[in-house]
Order: sequence, then structure tokens, then C-alpha cells
Amino acid sequence: MNAPQTSAQLQPQARQRPVPAALLAALSARFGARCSTALAVREQHGRDESAFTTVPPPAAVVYAESTSEVAEVLRLANEHGTPVIPYGVGSSLEGHLLAIEGGISLDVSRMNQVLAIHPEDLTVTVQPGVTRKQLNEELKHLGLFFSVDPGADASIGGMSATRASGTNTVRYGAMRENVLALEVVTPHPVKGSEVIRTGSRAKKSSAGYDLTRLFVGSEGTLGVITEITLKVYPLPEAITAAVCSFPDIGAAVRTTIEIIQLGVPIARVELLDANTVRAVNKHSKLTLREEAMLLMEFHGSPASVREQAETVQALAADQGGQAFEWAETPEERTRLWTARHAAYFAGLQTRPGCRAITTDACVPISQLATAVVESVDEANAGGIPYFLVGHVGDGNFHMGYLIDPDSADERARAEQLNHQLVHRALRLGGTCTGEHGIGLHKMGFLPEETGDGAVEVMRTIKRALDPKNIMNPGKIFAL
Amino acid sequence: MNAPQTSAQLQPQARQRPVPAALLAALSARFGARCSTALAVREQHGRDESAFTTVPPPAAVVYAESTSEVAEVLRLANEHGTPVIPYGVGSSLEGHLLAIEGGISLDVSRMNQVLAIHPEDLTVTVQPGVTRKQLNEELKHLGLFFSVDPGADASIGGMSATRASGTNTVRYGAMRENVLALEVVTPHPVKGSEVIRTGSRAKKSSAGYDLTRLFVGSEGTLGVITEITLKVYPLPEAITAAVCSFPDIGAAVRTTIEIIQLGVPIARVELLDANTVRAVNKHSKLTLREEAMLLMEFHGSPASVREQAETVQALAADQGGQAFEWAETPEERTRLWTARHAAYFAGLQTRPGCRAITTDACVPISQLATAVVESVDEANAGGIPYFLVGHVGDGNFHMGYLIDPDSADERARAEQLNHQLVHRALRLGGTCTGEHGIGLHKMGFLPEETGDGAVEVMRTIKRALDPKNIMNPGKIFAL
Repeated sequence: MNAPQTSAQLQPQARQRPVPAALLAALSARFGARCSTALAVREQHGRDESAFTTVPPPAAVVYAESTSEVAEVLRLANEHGTPVIPYGVGSSLEGHLLAIEGGISLDVSRMNQVLAIHPEDLTVTVQPGVTRKQLNEELKHLGLFFSVDPGADASIGGMSATRASGTNTVRYGAMRENVLALEVVTPHPVKGSEVIRTGSRAKKSSAGYDLTRLFVGSEGTLGVITEITLKVYPLPEAITAAVCSFPDIGAAVRTTIEIIQLGVPIARVELLDANTVRAVNKHSKLTLREEAMLLMEFHGSPASVREQAETVQALAADQGGQAFEWAETPEERTRLWTARHAAYFAGLQTRPGCRAITTDACVPISQLATAVVESVDEANAGGIPYFLVGHVGDGNFHMGYLIDPDSADERARAEQLNHQLVHRALRLGGTCTGEHGIGLHKMGFLPEETGDGAVEVMRTIKRALDPKNIMNPGKIFAL
Repeated sequence: MNAPQTSAQLQPQARQRPVPAALLAALSARFGARCSTALAVREQHGRDESAFTTVPPPAAVVYAESTSEVAEVLRLANEHGTPVIPYGVGSSLEGHLLAIEGGISLDVSRMNQVLAIHPEDLTVTVQPGVTRKQLNEELKHLGLFFSVDPGADASIGGMSATRASGTNTVRYGAMRENVLALEVVTPHPVKGSEVIRTGSRAKKSSAGYDLTRLFVGSEGTLGVITEITLKVYPLPEAITAAVCSFPDIGAAVRTTIEIIQLGVPIARVELLDANTVRAVNKHSKLTLREEAMLLMEFHGSPASVREQAETVQALAADQGGQAFEWAETPEERTRLWTARHAAYFAGLQTRPGCRAITTDACVPISQLATAVVESVDEANAGGIPYFLVGHVGDGNFHMGYLIDPDSADERARAEQLNHQLVHRALRLGGTCTGEHGIGLHKMGFLPEETGDGAVEVMRTIKRALDPKNIMNPGKIFAL
């Protein structure tokens, strides 16, 4: 086991590579106003939603509008050995966007077209800057939906790069399962860049190495994702949401474990601790009971939804669950899920000026009660305000420790709690990150989780595919 | 488009690397009788179920009994630059096991222990030589099952290496979705070999590159899989199987397309053409109507199964489906599915002495009727006996062209049909292989399907992780 990380280690040490003036001149000549060196623009692109102290921002921000423009930027950057940090909407939580080795930010948010919808095959192809809400708006009138829903209205490119998941993952899978194919611009030692395709629209394939899933979750370190083909789903015939309060958080978790072990095809099962319910009530003007709560949703035929709901209600009652409340109208459901998606920001607002240090452990479902209850006990003893939400059907939960960003002491205490929480998850057979990625914040945990050998294989792949180390360098692992 | 492959190209050109006597002596000294150079043993390990003319067999077969023994073999082989071909039960269909560059066969079939069962988490960990039927025997009394079921009783290691799927994949996913983590022995430029772990038992993770899915489907070219952690499922409360005959194959396929587009959570939907039904009737002593047929299974609660079955029955009737017959007892179901799994061998037996050239295209579901009907029309015109089976819910189907292996003319005509079928699948947005892998047989199609850029990325990864090219060389792509 590594020693606990200190707050000093968490200030990313900038190992800035100088960005040659010739590169900036070339980018400016090529992209005109779409290559910005304005400080405000650079600063906006040099941070994310994490609690990291900002390092110097990137030297420039280039707004690419096509795959060939992305390829041009990579070719130029490769010539100069200059880092490129792909940027979607800036909602990452682990420091992915910080220019710790300098370089330029490549903003693909203007590549935001839905390129193709194949309702008859339940697939869509989108550009990386399309956000999940935008995609669902375009799908709604076809009776389809895209299932992966992180809290933020993230870009599909960013969600692919971090292997994101969300509240529907328990039933419909994460980005790992829902990305069918990618177009990626890769750095190329000779050509400077190359556009590749990693798959087809077939539902499954055994054609060579699974490059799709190599790039999904590579956090921008192997190339820039410029097109994504995704699975989508028919809107279920019937949908019912429900909330249920529990006497303590352990009872809510134990109910979840039983739901999963019984094989109930529940579509969503989200845990909110009492702190989160309080924050959400205030932020979203709701009147939920301020106790540990499960927020659930059932999809299927009317009969199947009824059957699932009855089973779950019985399991919840056995654990002391009370006040099972149904939300059957779309409006009620939307209100509840909007509140859930806003939980992170609601949590932040309970302590003005704070930043959140966010955990993301995921454990085998049988270990979830231990993981959650022990982490909550430690947090209560630790004296740092926090909130807890969880995609508990997957064994995944987040604590947000709300720290004063100027207090080294609070930062250190929160990191110590995070450290204990992660080590517990690893001991229980789990992972330090279920869906946010390693970024900068969890780099220390990766070798512990997978062993040095696996990290060395990752490094070997990185060195081979990006010999000048220009793609989002210094993230996931040190080279 | 490439020119059609000729039969000459299909005789793998052996580029045999000499196997040093010193290596054979070292293996023999270390493994004793578990290192065999007997011709019969070598010949058995130098072929698979494909129609390839055999190349010279491997120089020796080593039976490894532990991960550390696998690591020893790789270390020795790496020192001598000698190819190693991992061997499970020999059921591959694309020439994966042929020693086209010489070397040794590493048989892991004796590593056949189920190492851990976690019923409470729905996961198991097994050694690579465990077969799918063996695993299901061990799970049955716990009310659990492992879902992936290729026709043969393949080894879990081999199924992982080829990214296999089967009849349940439409509902439960392929090996891609069901492998949670691997232990792999990798060639290592300095140490000779290294044992790595690619994941945890957590249901999802964003911890670094997805090495699990890089090795799943790598066909033994990147390392030897020595442990596999899998998802398993609770046996459904209710199971019903049904067969339905159709006036023509197009009607059966159109019914399938509607089932999938409607989002019916069908557990299995298999197509058998009239030729296959005839072969299966004879082989398994059944009396099925000798017409195009769908063989289906529904899993869920009793109410949900009833509901699914009613929906499907109505869709089938619209397409002229007749003689919907139910099989509700476990014995009836087992008889039907055993017959389905034996279809490949039943097909072979319709022409004594023949070998099958097997296709494996997979297309977006909306294109399946075109892909199947045009391929059948061509096969009927082509004059080569054939059978057709399909995991049609996934858009995946197999034709087996039954050739006289000594007839260069029949081989060429079958390959021409295969060629046309694959090109059609690629035009329709699909893949040349849904589940069998590239091996030797489909190497010509890979660059066409993914483009040269993606294949070059695969080659770059291969060169970096296996610098001496000892792991199953000459498969998937030429270096």
C-alpha cells in the first residue's frame, strides 16, 4: 500500500513544455479567430469540476469544426512535440483537462452534429461535442432514448473518453457497452496524425483487437475521438419511478443488494444519503423525507413494471423502508430525476465557496453495505461536511467531501478519508473509479489496484501509439 | 475491394521458424512427459475445425498446469524467439491453432479448475481450460448459469481469446460483455514473461485502459489467458422455448427484425434453414417441419414470459409463421437446444468426408433480410451443398459450405461465395466475423472492414507488447 497522499502531492506539479511560437503562429494562421490566446478562454479550458488548484492554463485554445481540422492540429502538434488536451464541455471531475505539461486545448464542442440516426437498428452516430441531453432531444420524437447519463450534461466525446456511466447503467450498461464504434484521430510517428475507424454498426464483432474499447476510457491520452456510434433504446412502454425512505443508510443498501441478487431488471436504483436529500430539497424545492432514500425506476410492459415494483416494495419493507411513493406522470418523474442529476451542485451549494473532493469507488454488490457504512462512519468522525450519492445497483457510490479550497488542513483530511475509502474498496475486490476515470487525482491508486505489470502494459501501449507523448500527457500514469 | 481469394491463398504458406533443439531439451527437462513430441499429439494440436489443409504441426506440445508454468514456457520461448500457440480444446473455426510459423503448442486444458464462485455477486473465476458445460454443471445447483454458448463445448480461455458469443447473446451479451477481468501471462522484452491482472470483480470501472477487452478477442497473439472472471446470471424463474416454421427464410428473418425493433427481451432467437432442419432431424432424431424455422426461448417471470411469447406469436403470424410449438419441460427444451448446438456437426454429416467453409457475417438488424436472402440465393445458384444457422437476434448468421476437401474447384467456389457474402455484409454496415475471430481465414477481409489505419494500430500494439512476435504469430494480420 502506498502512503496516504498529501495535499502537496495533490497540487499537480506543472512540468510545462514550452509551446513554440512557431506552432502558435501556424495555428493562428490556419484557424484565425478559432485559435484563441485570450487569458479568460485559456483559463476556462485549463480547469474542470475537480478541486485541483489550477496550474498554468494551456497556451492556446483551438476550436476544431471537423475531423480533418482535428487531424491538422495533431499533425502540427506532433511536429513540435506539443501536448494537446481534448476538451468537450469541461465537466470532468478528476483533473483531466489541466495542462500540467503545458500545450494547447483542442475544443471539439462545435463538432456537435447528430450525423445519423438508424431507428430500425437502434444506433446513432454523433460528433463528440453532442451532449447527452441534446442527443435525447433529437431522439425523443422517434420513441428512442440514449441511456448513459452522468450528472452533468456531458459531451458524448468526453463520456466516451472517461468510460462514463450513470443512473441507467444498472440496466442498460455504461459507455463500455454502449459505444459500438469510433472514429479517432491518432498521433502518427511519420504522418503526424491519422484518422482511423474502430468498428462497424454490427451489434457484435470479433474482427481483430477491440480498439473501440481501448479508446473508450483512454482519457484523451491516445487520440481525439471525432465520431461515436452508439446504441440507443426504444422508450419503454411503461415507466414508473418511486422513492422510498429508510431508517439508516445500511438498510437502503441492503435492499439494493437483494434487488440485484434476485435479478430484478430494475432500470435505475439510486441512493441518496440524508445530507443529499436535504441539499436536493433546498436546491430543487422538493419536500422529500430527509432520510437515506432510494430513488428507483422500473421500465417494461405495464405488467412487468407492476411485478418489479411489487417485488421491490416487499424487499424494502423487510428492511424497514417507509413511505414508498410513486411518480407515474412524466412531469413528476422528470422533477425527481432532474433533482438527482443536480445533486452534485446542490451539495456544493450547502457550503458557499467550497469545492468537492469526489470519490468514485465501485465494489462487488455483496460488499456494498460494508463499503458505504464504514465510509460514512469515517466521514462522520472526520468532521468534513459531505454528501453521498450512489449508483448502488452497480456497487458504485460517490462521496463529495466539501472543503474550503484554501484550507490545506481540510484538503488533507478529505484526501485521507478518500484514501481510506479507496483502500477499503480495493480490499473488498473493487475499483477506485467506477465511472469518472483516473485523470490526475487517482493516479496513485492505479498501480495498487491493477498491479505494476498492468500499468506497464498501458505505458507500453501509450509509448507505441503516441511516441512524442503529445496526447493529454501526465494523466492516468506517469511515463 | 480485394480480388477474390483463391484456393492457393487459402493453403497457409508455412513460414516455419526452426525450433532450437536447446529449447526442446529445456522444455523436456522441465516438463518431462508433459512435453510431448509424439507425432499424433502434435498433429492433433496443429489443426482445428476449419477446412484448412494442415501445415506442419508444432514441434512439441507442452501441457501447463499452472500460471507459473505458463510463465516459464513463455520465458523460454521468448529467449529463443520461438512461437507459442495457446491451445484449449481445439474447437476454433478459423485456423487459429495452425503452426504456420512453427513453434510449440501450449495446452492449458489441464488448467480446468473453477477457482471461485461468488453467487452473491453473480461472478465466478475460472482457469482457461474449464469448458462452458463444465462451468454450467458446477453452477446449476446454485441456481446460476453462464450464458455464452458457442456450438462446441469450448474452453472459457478459448472463448475469451476469440471474443465468442452464442445463442443467449441477444439477451445476455457476448464474451466482450461477460468477462470482468483476466489474468494474462504476457511476453516481456526483458523478463521474458510477466503475469498481469486486467481488472477487479467490480461490475464497471474506469481505471485506465481497458486491458480486459484488449485481450478478449486478441486470439492468443498478445499473451496467454490463465484466469478469467466472468459474470453469471440467476436461472430465470420461468423459461419457455418455442419453434415456429415459416414459408421462406425471409419471413423468418423479418419476424426476428420486428422482435428486436420492438424491444422484446427475448433470450434466444435462432434461425435454421430447411437444410439445417433436415440435417438436425436426422442427427438428433427429431421430427421438426423441414422448413425455415425460428427456435426461440423466453426468460423471466411467468407473466413476462407469457407476454413476450404472445407478442412474438403475433409477429410470426403476420409473416406467415405456422405450427408454433411450445417446449415447456426442461427435457423438451434440452432436446431442442442440444440439437441446435449439434447443427454444425449434423451439417457436416450430410456429406460424408466433407469439410465446412464457415461464414460468420454480422450486420445491423435492419439489413439482415437482405444479407441472408441474397446469400442463400447465391448459394443455391452456386451448386455447393450448404446449411445456414443464425444468431439472428444479433444480426449474425453462419453458412457452412460443405466441400470435398480434395477438390480445389469446390474450395474455390465456396470461397467465392464466402467472399461475396462478406463483401455484402461490409456494404451493409456489418462485420466479416461476429464471433469466430479473424484467425487465418479472414485476414484478407480485416483491412477492408476497418481500414488500413486501424490494422496498423493493431500491429503497433502487437509489436510493442510482443517484440519477438512469439505469441500465435501470423494470425489476424501479417506483421
